[in-house]
Amino acid sequence: MTRTGVWLVGGRGSVATTAMVGAAAVAAGAARPEGMVTASAGFDQARLAPVDDLVFGGQDVVSTPLVKRAEQLAQGGVFPAPLVGVVEDRLSVLDERVRTCPAAGDTSPRTAVDAMRHDLHAFRAAEDVERLVVVNLASTEAPAAWEQPPLRTEDLDRSFDAGWDAATPSLVAAIAALEAGAAFVDFTPGAALTAPAVLALAEERGLPVAGRDGKTGETLLKSVLAPMFAHRHLPVHSWAGTNLLGGGDGARLADPAHASSKLASKGRTLETILGPDVTQPVHIDCVPDLGEWKTAWNHVHFTGFLGTGMQLQLTWQGCDSALAAPLVLDLARLLDLALQRGDRGAQAGLGYFFKDPVGTDDHGFWSQLSTLERWVAGA
Amino acid sequence: MTRTGVWLVGGRGSVATTAMVGAAAVAAGAARPEGMVTASAGFDQARLAPVDDLVFGGQDVVSTPLVKRAEQLAQGGVFPAPLVGVVEDRLSVLDERVRTCPAAGDTSPRTAVDAMRHDLHAFRAAEDVERLVVVNLASTEAPAAWEQPPLRTEDLDRSFDAGWDAATPSLVAAIAALEAGAAFVDFTPGAALTAPAVLALAEERGLPVAGRDGKTGETLLKSVLAPMFAHRHLPVHSWAGTNLLGGGDGARLADPAHASSKLASKGRTLETILGPDVTQPVHIDCVPDLGEWKTAWNHVHFTGFLGTGMQLQLTWQGCDSALAAPLVLDLARLLDLALQRGDRGAQAGLGYFFKDPVGTDDHGFWSQLSTLERWVAGA
Amino acid sequence: MTRTGVWLVGGRGSVATTAMVGAAAVAAGAARPEGMVTASAGFDQARLAPVDDLVFGGQDVVSTPLVKRAEQLAQGGVFPAPLVGVVEDRLSVLDERVRTCPAAGDTSPRTAVDAMRHDLHAFRAAEDVERLVVVNLASTEAPAAWEQPPLRTEDLDRSFDAGWDAATPSLVAAIAALEAGAAFVDFTPGAALTAPAVLALAEERGLPVAGRDGKTGETLLKSVLAPMFAHRHLPVHSWAGTNLLGGGDGARLADPAHASSKLASKGRTLETILGPDVTQPVHIDCVPDLGEWKTAWNHVHFTGFLGTGMQLQLTWQGCDSALAAPLVLDLARLLDLALQRGDRGAQAGLGYFFKDPVGTDDHGFWSQLSTLERWVAGA
Amino acid sequence: MTRTGVWLVGGRGSVATTAMVGAAAVAAGAARPEGMVTASAGFDQARLAPVDDLVFGGQDVVSTPLVKRAEQLAQGGVFPAPLVGVVEDRLSVLDERVRTCPAAGDTSPRTAVDAMRHDLHAFRAAEDVERLVVVNLASTEAPAAWEQPPLRTEDLDRSFDAGWDAATPSLVAAIAALEAGAAFVDFTPGAALTAPAVLALAEERGLPVAGRDGKTGETLLKSVLAPMFAHRHLPVHSWAGTNLLGGGDGARLADPAHASSKLASKGRTLETILGPDVTQPVHIDCVPDLGEWKTAWNHVHFTGFLGTGMQLQLTWQGCDSALAAPLVLDLARLLDLALQRGDRGAQAGLGYFFKDPVGTDDHGFWSQLSTLERWVAGA
Repeated sequence: MTRTGVWLVGGRGSVATTAMVGAAAVAAGAARPEGMVTASAGFDQARLAPVDDLVFGGQDVVSTPLVKRAEQLAQGGVFPAPLVGVVEDRLSVLDERVRTCPAAGDTSPRTAVDAMRHDLHAFRAAEDVERLVVVNLASTEAPAAWEQPPLRTEDLDRSFDAGWDAATPSLVAAIAALEAGAAFVDFTPGAALTAPAVLALAEERGLPVAGRDGKTGETLLKSVLAPMFAHRHLPVHSWAGTNLLGGGDGARLADPAHASSKLASKGRTLETILGPDVTQPVHIDCVPDLGEWKTAWNHVHFTGFLGTGMQLQLTWQGCDSALAAPLVLDLARLLDLALQRGDRGAQAGLGYFFKDPVGTDDHGFWSQLSTLERWVAGA
Repeated sequence: MTRTGVWLVGGRGSVATTAMVGAAAVAAGAARPEGMVTASAGFDQARLAPVDDLVFGGQDVVSTPLVKRAEQLAQGGVFPAPLVGVVEDRLSVLDERVRTCPAAGDTSPRTAVDAMRHDLHAFRAAEDVERLVVVNLASTEAPAAWEQPPLRTEDLDRSFDAGWDAATPSLVAAIAALEAGAAFVDFTPGAALTAPAVLALAEERGLPVAGRDGKTGETLLKSVLAPMFAHRHLPVHSWAGTNLLGGGDGARLADPAHASSKLASKGRTLETILGPDVTQPVHIDCVPDLGEWKTAWNHVHFTGFLGTGMQLQLTWQGCDSALAAPLVLDLARLLDLALQRGDRGAQAGLGYFFKDPVGTDDHGFWSQLSTLERWVAGA
Repeated sequence: MTRTGVWLVGGRGSVATTAMVGAAAVAAGAARPEGMVTASAGFDQARLAPVDDLVFGGQDVVSTPLVKRAEQLAQGGVFPAPLVGVVEDRLSVLDERVRTCPAAGDTSPRTAVDAMRHDLHAFRAAEDVERLVVVNLASTEAPAAWEQPPLRTEDLDRSFDAGWDAATPSLVAAIAALEAGAAFVDFTPGAALTAPAVLALAEERGLPVAGRDGKTGETLLKSVLAPMFAHRHLPVHSWAGTNLLGGGDGARLADPAHASSKLASKGRTLETILGPDVTQPVHIDCVPDLGEWKTAWNHVHFTGFLGTGMQLQLTWQGCDSALAAPLVLDLARLLDLALQRGDRGAQAGLGYFFKDPVGTDDHGFWSQLSTLERWVAGA
Repeated sequence: MTRTGVWLVGGRGSVATTAMVGAAAVAAGAARPEGMVTASAGFDQARLAPVDDLVFGGQDVVSTPLVKRAEQLAQGGVFPAPLVGVVEDRLSVLDERVRTCPAAGDTSPRTAVDAMRHDLHAFRAAEDVERLVVVNLASTEAPAAWEQPPLRTEDLDRSFDAGWDAATPSLVAAIAALEAGAAFVDFTPGAALTAPAVLALAEERGLPVAGRDGKTGETLLKSVLAPMFAHRHLPVHSWAGTNLLGGGDGARLADPAHASSKLASKGRTLETILGPDVTQPVHIDCVPDLGEWKTAWNHVHFTGFLGTGMQLQLTWQGCDSALAAPLVLDLARLLDLALQRGDRGAQAGLGYFFKDPVGTDDHGFWSQLSTLERWVAGA
């Protein structure tokens, strides 16, 4: 029997906790794998690890027990309260596997890489996992203070020497993962996968990487609907959006420096599908009273035959953790498959899952889906 | 030079008038073919007739001059008022080619078939058109009073003998078209193409037919978004819809007998994509003050991971004539291609254009698009 | 010390259970009286009974224990689950005071009146309450099968002789309440208070009555916004509405016979404020997956200066039980005040709380509020 | 016969042009005074000047002929195109009365005051108007560069000496108006009426002033709905808003310096009605393709009984010029009444018309309406 290790950076956050609660609940037969793409019919034939065989570990700067985090999330409506009792024992076991790590700034980036690599080796040995996937679920980081990203692997040292502004948390996590022989997924809009040097390192080490920024709400809808306008030959003039976010992510994104990473990753979808002439103001507001919930409003102004102006409005009211967590499980399984197959470098075939996919300019949901299906089939 | 005749049943209605104004404006270089699917890049290689080569004729129970109808539509915001002046001369010419025909009930169905066939032959001769496409744009008809639809061509006589309740206006138009050697498109939710006898007649005569009920608004969105939920493995529990329609179509659809045809054709999309367990109340209201405009509101309740309930709301504010008219031009060009190729019977490959496509159970926008692309390529 | 009895018809339903849970939580200091109008500053001076002094009893056709009902409601998100533990003991005491009564049809209306009057006397004696208020919270009833409502008290016998179609459940409850010397509130769109005979009986007995149909969502918004359009002199052409209801009330209202009572009571608001020329289609749909939640969408089409058409859309996502329950406590306190003052007959001054107020044609929120303030002041 | 002069600053802008087109259309019997508050029933008894007796003049930095501006607005859907023909002659007359004035910066503020005062005297003499009302309809100005506003009339000189950053265009217009013996209305969020010195000057001269920032859309709805939540004792936690503006005003407000005046004036409404704890992010986006149209989306998160969270969403799609223009006519008539009565200083009784009313902290629509009614009655 082979088991697959899944190491979550930000392992006590909302998404990570929900992913672990969910995996435990599915394994216990207490929940169905809804929201998991790889649990749908088309993926039956792929050699994907059963959810039960995923062995979780991780790291976080906070040390709140996972059961307590689960109770908080249940109270916030992310999942039913009785589920916490069902998975309580499993969570307690996982609690010991999520290490407390220093915050960025409390140590040097290079020290952080070494410590994380060490933790990954220890986890692999202790849990006897054959393959390892690291998923970055940490808070949105500020943009890297690069004039240009490090191009070759040998340029990485310079970034690390420049301190945390250049060696951002996602870069640290990516390098540590690759040095430890693990696949790496950036589920945040981190800088790591925008650095050619990181992709080059993955190639060198023969490891797959995928990212970035999980596509779960407003951008998901844009990537579905924008191709409809394009194929129906209906010119879109403006696509305005407002995102109201509660909880921790909202507070982080209310800081303009952090928001800029997110807004940049959100903007590319419409531009690649509809061209550069669409006016697309987008806002992210922190509205703490919304808790774990997120509301996105979009207003699309388009014209039909003979210039007639028309409108489409969308309101999406979603729980980001409940949307993101099953995709984390999907990506763990898919990167595990890539490791099995020896796929290396940026996995463009997984762009379906991301707002700003690495290795491809395709942002349309339907073409990404075709690409994913071919990727899974190994075609 | 070969020209293609396009015969519009309901030729002075909003959609038909907009189609003819638009074709004239495009031919005159006064408008771009926005909203026309066949004017987008992917269709460059197909042997489609230029819009300029489409020769319009038609029939209607009313005789309002087309210029006057165009002015009314411009006042209602369907297209800019100055455009009417640009195409006025062309409309006056067309005016003579749109025959005034008796309303259903003022004659027998068989007499109506004979008269229409005669008109089609006369039009073909007068305008010297090689191929002919008949498009049904008449008002939504009440469901046919059939226990079961006529199966074989020889069963059609029985329907005609039973009078207008069985030989509905769409059936009359379809039979007349086929008997006159024309392709037939039902852009309404008429009964004609639900009758196997009509499809059999098309096969016998070697003629193509396509339909039914042009997909321009709420159902278009459903066919785009429902597959997203399916592929993301997000169970949809309810999808409620309300449609506010002004103008003539609204009044017609406020009559429950006529609405039932439309509601039935709208309902199948979600069922085929999401399965039978989705609660889907749909309403059509006549709101005369909305004029040529239509507003559709949809509320989707779905669950994500671990049963978390979430919502998507949509509001679509569209001008149906401006959305439908370019599709009428598309279908004229595509059926002309089918005639050129000798395609016969129900054209499942054109399901992309219809709420309730004939010859296929595929209601998903993206799979329909792939099918259309193959159909156009003759593959 | 004087205590006030509050008898809830439909005492194990969602609204009644929430009212009792809330009153217990407020009394225990575990919740603030949010949503209660009489708990806001303007009501300090009125001689209103403290919430702690309200003594609940009631009747229902089902016998589910209140604690179990409370747990179901908490699971449906109506209030936080931990609150049930806080009020569990109090609910158990109340459980014995909510009688199980036969369903309409299992007995004659006259027998039902006698049984209920007997129960009210027994409750009053057992709990030693000085004044008694009966609040009808039963499911929406079908319209009474009257050609015209009973006018004089002596006409009531004829209704009772005609069986349950004429002596509807609300009529039975109202007569029993008045015969037992209690005030009566119809929080549903029941027929009772449309019968002049019932108002006459209240006058004769010197008892106050108020109703009907608590104003908690869509109609609340209409009564607030319609006067804005009127005062800004902006003509409203149409005001369309769709209501999606989950749970028990939705199922009941999916039955057209029951819906007709509700729709009629909803329609009058706009007509009295904006005049008879507003097109106002309204739908109520049962969408079981929405549980205790209700979503109302409204689309208002109005014109400004020089006929320019504009739109306002509203989406209200509310929990009806959480909106209605505090108003039930308000009405219990206010009717108790009316009993103290010897007010008799229809209390037009309480129209603020109702969709279809008895004794007045005023449906505007702001004028109703002024009237309420005067009523409370005894002016 | 006495006539009333109305001097429009920004006299060729969208609002001013619409006001003059509308007044001419109403005078010609070609339009009804819809949207004019003073044309509704409650104002019959007031001694208000007939719309026909209003004599328009004004000033603008551009010199586009009014007929051309009217044609542009008609093309943008602000009013029907045929109306322009009806009022063309009247507009041509008005064209001569709207002076071209230098832009701020091309002259000194004191010179601008002198020139405007001179123009006002000339207008009054030429048109033989007894009373004069100046209405500021210029573009939103940047906030004044004051540490504190000028307090006493003698402080004004210091502001003027400091140049255009301190003597903003609204201040120039207000001082010129008052020096010329005219009433002054600031329909924009200009700085003038925030300066105690301006109010003091109005008192000294015995002239009325009113403002500021006409309440026509999102803030109108807030001022109507927020009191509903307050009176129903429903705590509001957040009220988020996004405003999409086309055309000139949108471009101006896309400049953060100008937007800050507008956003500040929008924010006070909720704070005064609901208290300081409401999270209220508000955005203004320039979306040029929306032309003369404005779309505002609001999302309100509130709680009911026992802390149950609920939502209200609003989408307002309005044409600002068509909403603002009739209020300009209202204010001209009402200030004329104030001049007749000798009212002096800030007219708090007119707060009903403004986002940020001068002389009062009352932002609630309904209490403002009562105040207005008393003001008109002279009570």
